Order: sequence, then structure tokens, then C-alpha cells
Amino acid sequence: MASVLVPLAEGFEEVEAVAMVDVMRRGGIEVTLGHLNVDSADDLVTGANGITLKADNSVYEVITDDFDMIVLPGGWGGTHALAENERVQTLLKEFNAKDKRIGAICAAPFALKKAGVLGNNYTCYPGSKDEVNHPGYRSDLKVVEDGKILTSQGPGTALCFGLEIVKRLVGVESYQAIKNGMLLGFC
Amino acid sequence: MASVLVPLAEGFEEVEAVAMVDVMRRGGIEVTLGHLNVDSADDLVTGANGITLKADNSVYEVITDDFDMIVLPGGWGGTHALAENERVQTLLKEFNAKDKRIGAICAAPFALKKAGVLGNNYTCYPGSKDEVNHPGYRSDLKVVEDGKILTSQGPGTALCFGLEIVKRLVGVESYQAIKNGMLLGFC
Repeated sequence: MASVLVPLAEGFEEVEAVAMVDVMRRGGIEVTLGHLNVDSADDLVTGANGITLKADNSVYEVITDDFDMIVLPGGWGGTHALAENERVQTLLKEFNAKDKRIGAICAAPFALKKAGVLGNNYTCYPGSKDEVNHPGYRSDLKVVEDGKILTSQGPGTALCFGLEIVKRLVGVESYQAIKNGMLLGFC
Repeated sequence: MASVLVPLAEGFEEVEAVAMVDVMRRGGIEVTLGHLNVDSADDLVTGANGITLKADNSVYEVITDDFDMIVLPGGWGGTHALAENERVQTLLKEFNAKDKRIGAICAAPFALKKAGVLGNNYTCYPGSKDEVNHPGYRSDLKVVEDGKILTSQGPGTALCFGLEIVKRLVGVESYQAIKNGMLLGFC
């Protein structure tokens, strides 16, 4: 079974995180929501719009080898926290060094850039591209694949982003079944 | 400020609930997530895909007069719980009697039918229409308005459903700003 780590920082964009996780779990992917607190029991994280999620574990309690991919939701507050958190930055560098997949949506490619893992063929939230300030931004695609790095634009593309992850980690049959079942004809 | 009650039962469809709440809060609507436990401190609710949300209050601690609208997320587990919960059924009947707006997405129109508030012009999840088993199902629209009753189809239409609620409770300018800001051109 494929497994994915989704770090959640205070201020994360709720629909981006939940859309990706919902789609991935429907595809049979084992998803771990990782909070950024050292105390693993301190597991509630509140997003940009005041929605609080219960995370599964602390990012300090997980190891890169247990996952096939790490995926970052956006939201500026959450993104800045992910970019400034040493543990998350170390995880991103480890996933990259081990040639594992890395994903980021909306503002979160900023945190990939900070870790030095963002290539020159990516997308992000259109309103964030100046702050990401990195060559290779694509405005024409909902999801951009560049080697092992998968990026997407924002809330309206989060379900499609989840689908593209399922296609890669599980397969095209699961992708198509979820696309039909969730009424995602626009993806 | 407009205010909306969103009852959350175990087994709710996470992306539907979170998408609607995210959009509504971006529109400045005061949204209360209501869990179905009598103890108001027992406020964690787990959805169909294992994502746990923290609710704001118990449905037993809120009153109809404090809200402009009640909106039900789908997911079969959550829908059956909403249909069988006497407090939620009473709330639906009160909102209807006071000519307040009522919304439901995916399987949740089943809970409106149980309360006797579903009219003969509605939509729901295509795979749920036989269990809803009510005349007036529309397959051609993402969101159907029938007087004060607003219904929608499923996960892929939840963001659009939230937008339509914002259009009605807040206004078209807010609707358009959120549609652009969340990249919801497909709505």
C-alpha cells in the first residue's frame, strides 16, 4: 500500500488539505496527517478559515523511509510555517535525496524552494508566484509534473491534484473510478 | 452577518463539509459546525475517510433563531445519522416552518425528505437518487434552488454549492471574488 505524509501547520488551507487527503484515502493510500508539535498528543491544528483538524502524528515522530511521498497543502500562514520549520525542511531534503515524490499546492511551492527541491517547471497559486519568485512557473496547467515533483495551483485544483497523485501511486483504474465517483469531470 | 449551521455526524463526507464551510467563511458567513453529542465538550467528529474535525458546538445547544440557514453535508453514514437524529430533524422542521433556507448535498437530501422539507425540484448524488426515492430529481444541474431549499450533487460540486450559498446570503460581489480567488472557474 502506498503511503503519503501530509504536514499540517497552523494556517493551512483547509479545503486543499482535506480534498487531497479525501481523494488519496479513497484510492487506498495510507495518509498520515503530521502536525508540527514536538508533543505527539498536541494534535489539533487550525487552518486559515478556523477549521480544526486532528492530525495523526507529529512530524518529529515519523521517518522518511516509511513514506512514498510528502505533500504540502497551501495557505500562506501554513506555508510560511512549513518553510520555517527545520524538521519539515529536513524531511523535504530527505525525500528529495531518496528520490521519493514531493508535492505542493497553492503557496506551498515556496516551502519547496526554501528546501532547494523546486525545479524549473512548476505551478503555484497565481497570486503567490511573485513571492515564490522562482524561474519556471507555469500558468497553463492545474497540475505540473517535473521529475518527482508534483505541483498544483490552489483550492479549485486540489481535488484534481489528489487524483493525479492517485494515478501515480495507485494506478489509472483507481484514478478513473474516483474521478467518476466524486463527480470530478472538470479535472 | 449571515450565519449558517452545519450539523456534522460521524461518517460525514469530509471534502463536502470542509469545502462548503471554507467558501462560506471566506464570504464572511459565521458558520457553526454542530456535532450530535449531548455533551458539548465531546466535539470531535470523524468523517467517512477518517478525517476528524473539531466541531464548534452541540446541535442540542443551538437555536434556530440564531441562524439564517442550515446546510447538511453528505456521506451515507453521516446522512443516515442526520436522518435518524431527532434533534436534527426538529431543527430542519423549524428552519422550514420559519421560512429559513435549508441546504443539502450528495446523499443528504435523504435527511430532508425524512423531515418532510424536500420539495419536488432537487438534486442529489446520482448514486443516491434511488435511496432518496423522491419525485423531482434533476440530473442536469450542480445546484438546484427550489424556494428556500438548495441542493447539490456531491464532492465535485461542493465548492460550487458553497459559492451559491454565498451569492444568496452575502451577495454577488463576494461570490465573484471568492470564485476568482479560489480558482473556481468550473462552477
